[in-house]
Amino acid sequence: MGSRIKSVAVLSEVPNIFACVTKLLPAINVQEITPGSNDALSQLQKAEVILADFDKISNYINQLKETKWIQGTWAGVELLLRQYAKNQIRPSCPIARFSGNHFGTIMSEYVVAHVTSFERDFPATWEAQKEKKWNLCGKIRDYRAIRDMEVGILGGGQIGLHMAGVLKMLGARIWCLVRTIPDTKSSSVDEYRLTNQLDEILTNCDLLVNVLPKTPATRGLLNSDNLSKCRNTLFVNVGRGSIVSEADLVEALEKRYLRGAILDVFNAEPLPSDSQLWELPQVVITPHVAGLTRAQDVASHFKQNLDLWNNEGRLMNVIDFERGY
Amino acid sequence: MGSRIKSVAVLSEVPNIFACVTKLLPAINVQEITPGSNDALSQLQKAEVILADFDKISNYINQLKETKWIQGTWAGVELLLRQYAKNQIRPSCPIARFSGNHFGTIMSEYVVAHVTSFERDFPATWEAQKEKKWNLCGKIRDYRAIRDMEVGILGGGQIGLHMAGVLKMLGARIWCLVRTIPDTKSSSVDEYRLTNQLDEILTNCDLLVNVLPKTPATRGLLNSDNLSKCRNTLFVNVGRGSIVSEADLVEALEKRYLRGAILDVFNAEPLPSDSQLWELPQVVITPHVAGLTRAQDVASHFKQNLDLWNNEGRLMNVIDFERGY
Repeated sequence: MGSRIKSVAVLSEVPNIFACVTKLLPAINVQEITPGSNDALSQLQKAEVILADFDKISNYINQLKETKWIQGTWAGVELLLRQYAKNQIRPSCPIARFSGNHFGTIMSEYVVAHVTSFERDFPATWEAQKEKKWNLCGKIRDYRAIRDMEVGILGGGQIGLHMAGVLKMLGARIWCLVRTIPDTKSSSVDEYRLTNQLDEILTNCDLLVNVLPKTPATRGLLNSDNLSKCRNTLFVNVGRGSIVSEADLVEALEKRYLRGAILDVFNAEPLPSDSQLWELPQVVITPHVAGLTRAQDVASHFKQNLDLWNNEGRLMNVIDFERGY
Repeated sequence: MGSRIKSVAVLSEVPNIFACVTKLLPAINVQEITPGSNDALSQLQKAEVILADFDKISNYINQLKETKWIQGTWAGVELLLRQYAKNQIRPSCPIARFSGNHFGTIMSEYVVAHVTSFERDFPATWEAQKEKKWNLCGKIRDYRAIRDMEVGILGGGQIGLHMAGVLKMLGARIWCLVRTIPDTKSSSVDEYRLTNQLDEILTNCDLLVNVLPKTPATRGLLNSDNLSKCRNTLFVNVGRGSIVSEADLVEALEKRYLRGAILDVFNAEPLPSDSQLWELPQVVITPHVAGLTRAQDVASHFKQNLDLWNNEGRLMNVIDFERGY
């Protein structure tokens, strides 16, 4: 357990994060460190705990021998895993990802909103409004609802399960792709499938949502071969672009295996202006904003981990460098 | 209890409803009645149970002495209540509204989708896509999420509570306006308020959703006087237009008591082309499609009531003509 944390350093470019943390933790000495400044390392070394963006802290990690733990502001851990694999970093303390309900809630609302907008044709609604027209044509009136859908969620972590809960409450039947079937099954999931049973999800689902992180196992998990099993499916990607190559995705759209795609993440970001995806009418592109890191959410998550450490000597969402997530 | 229902008449213009019912109830003799046809009454009189649109059945109600019960295809009961108040109809049997999860799910997805689209500026996203631009400006990146909001739901019936559950799961804090505080409080509602405490909801909420039906008590419940208590609130109306006059609504928008309005129902429908609402940039207008009557939902609800009648001799959602809902 040890003593309660008294000093925290913040090394982050999340807008407004320092103000949020000091406001939420009035009893703690919080130092704001400027990335790249001359005394950044010595200041970081003085703090018991560090709250940091992964790309900012990685240069210092090997020199932080006394730090008790590091709270990241990112959910994605690819950068640190890659540096770890190359022997560039060897952390001496636990590093926690920023995770939890924050992403689950804001990514779920993104999925519900964009799927509903797609199915009910919001753009046509607004065109009608501009023309002052009470337009009941097409999908505006004759729409498919989430309650009509079998939904496949690729990823059964916190975010995937939260999304399953929301979509289930909206009436969908939920399939979930997982690495291992959990001992305690979620009441929000109707059908669990293992990675080697992915085809069953592709064959049965009307809506396919990817929330998987980028790992060697998820790269190209979807491809032109297995996407051909889809049945005019709507695909939403809020995980990582690496789940499918752009060429395979475009092919599946053109061959109508996929009826449409709502894409927040890409193999290259920003999405290059010569990407075919920009022009496909059945594709919606958003600039990696489905699950943003917001200062108020980071600060409140950090406080939770701080309380957990102070009271129970443990942390949530510690990175496992060997398993790779 | 009595014997099991064997014959059903369908008098409805819900698209595809006859096919849906016959498919779902293969053991029952289902007759499709053409509204206004010469033998409509005699055919209706032969059926034990009638599934009907309220506007179609109301002409026949007083002559149906042997009918065991009527299942409506509408959730709204204003028409029948008005005719009852004028002594035009005196039903001899229970009449059930079409209600339940169907509306709760599709109206909840409407609310989540339009609120998220408003807060994250979906139209700007699509403009950016047309220009092949990775645009992180404005609300596209710096958005308010449902988890940031105090949400007031006007109406604590099935639909309101379902919506409360969905918005709660998305992280909102929920206030609910009810006629009486229920003995068993919903775990989705943080704050119950009675009608005479409406101002507390208006003062505290960022998002205000009306799901109330049209009754004498709800007409003008919102008005320029109490809307001035709002704090730059987003207003969603999926209940009935009569909750607020158009003039009062426009005033509240222009004075910024309301930051915006998402309107699916109006005092006059279709919304007249000279309505000021069409042109306000902070208003989204949809043509009464948030909670559509869809054949598959009506048929499955009807089957539930049929099973309940056959097995327990009771029905869900029977209209109470004296209480007026």
